[in-house]
Amino acid sequence: MIELLALPGLPEVRPGDDLARLILDTGTELTADDVLVVAHKVVSKAEGRVVDLGDVTPGERARRLAADHGKDPRHVEVVLSEAAQLVRADGGRLICRTRHGFVCANAGVDQSNASHPDQLILLPLDPDASARRLRAALPNRPAVIITDSFGRAWRTGQCEVAIGAAGIIALEDWRGQPDTQGRELHATMIAVADEAAAAADLARAKDSREPAIRVRGLHRHITPEDGAGVAPLIRRLEDDLFR
Amino acid sequence: MIELLALPGLPEVRPGDDLARLILDTGTELTADDVLVVAHKVVSKAEGRVVDLGDVTPGERARRLAADHGKDPRHVEVVLSEAAQLVRADGGRLICRTRHGFVCANAGVDQSNASHPDQLILLPLDPDASARRLRAALPNRPAVIITDSFGRAWRTGQCEVAIGAAGIIALEDWRGQPDTQGRELHATMIAVADEAAAAADLARAKDSREPAIRVRGLHRHITPEDGAGVAPLIRRLEDDLFR
Repeated sequence: MIELLALPGLPEVRPGDDLARLILDTGTELTADDVLVVAHKVVSKAEGRVVDLGDVTPGERARRLAADHGKDPRHVEVVLSEAAQLVRADGGRLICRTRHGFVCANAGVDQSNASHPDQLILLPLDPDASARRLRAALPNRPAVIITDSFGRAWRTGQCEVAIGAAGIIALEDWRGQPDTQGRELHATMIAVADEAAAAADLARAKDSREPAIRVRGLHRHITPEDGAGVAPLIRRLEDDLFR
Repeated sequence: MIELLALPGLPEVRPGDDLARLILDTGTELTADDVLVVAHKVVSKAEGRVVDLGDVTPGERARRLAADHGKDPRHVEVVLSEAAQLVRADGGRLICRTRHGFVCANAGVDQSNASHPDQLILLPLDPDASARRLRAALPNRPAVIITDSFGRAWRTGQCEVAIGAAGIIALEDWRGQPDTQGRELHATMIAVADEAAAAADLARAKDSREPAIRVRGLHRHITPEDGAGVAPLIRRLEDDLFR
């Protein structure tokens, strides 16, 4: 049995805010067997990973891309500054590989749910470290997953995925294990942290202020040590057939 | 609050079996507000979508691909017969577009959890129709999602996704709706059926015989009519940047 509960009522988060304190103030019980799934926007805001468009001077490449794709050149400048590689640019979509190794639209730079209309929210610099800090600051040390909504190459719509994690085995490796018939499973690695991120997204509405979800029933994936975070979920560049 | 419960004890499913009856026999309550998420393998088996390797004669293309990628030419022959397009072939991976429009490894043809070692399981011919039939055969008509495990272009590990659906809005479209600040959300379409598929996968272990999961709490996505199934989740070929 798995149970997903949206934590109530987080206030608007501002740079410097103590996110663990805001979560504790909701009064929601969190045990060592729980996973706390948090949308990155509140983590990024608390960490000051926000940019005011008014402070941005677009360079030549950003101005050219913006003109080609009908976008704000200042927004594109910030996207490029967050991107390690522009994977595809087409029809207004800028698919980027971020410095963390994530492939997503606009290198994770987003305007929705920002605190004011000229603000952009960036991904945390090191989301695994953010997850570890949040876990350490919460009594009972629940496992923590930090998430963002990513599009997919061949499917419409976004799914929430894990961009940072602490205390959870992000990738469950069944290779070499028997299937229900006792035969070896050959290619089964399950992206548990991504599935937990997706599950948590079901427990809230996008227009609610419910960035944090408690997931109960995943204790078999939880570890006392913080572990490798989301690194096991990032496909290595040399294995990427769709660069 | 969302609650996920694995239905207990389905027996090995064989061609011609009545899947609705097997599900009912578990004694699990299913209401009109529930979503029943079912791994496609049991649907495919009940529908006879299985192939014995001994019955397959590989053609020239299958033999060449099998030799290049260290695979069984009979298996490759079946993959090619299920594929509308071979999108990438590399390092033993055959990424295909299926006739349904799904992009996945081996066109969904899989050996794991087959009934015997020489059996391959195919995807249902029309998984939305399979979902509609299963819904109609269950008292109270819960919504139904049929799933498979797909890899992702840029992330390691598989996530369960929806390949068929009845009675659930697979893609929630927030475009034009306000965010928490009352500003318009520009690019937010949430793949609800895929997130529900992923969530359900957390409620079972791969070596358990638990293909069916009951999901409670998704009633706001459920519709009396069966609806468009998973069609809204399939990216149109002309929008695909990674063909």
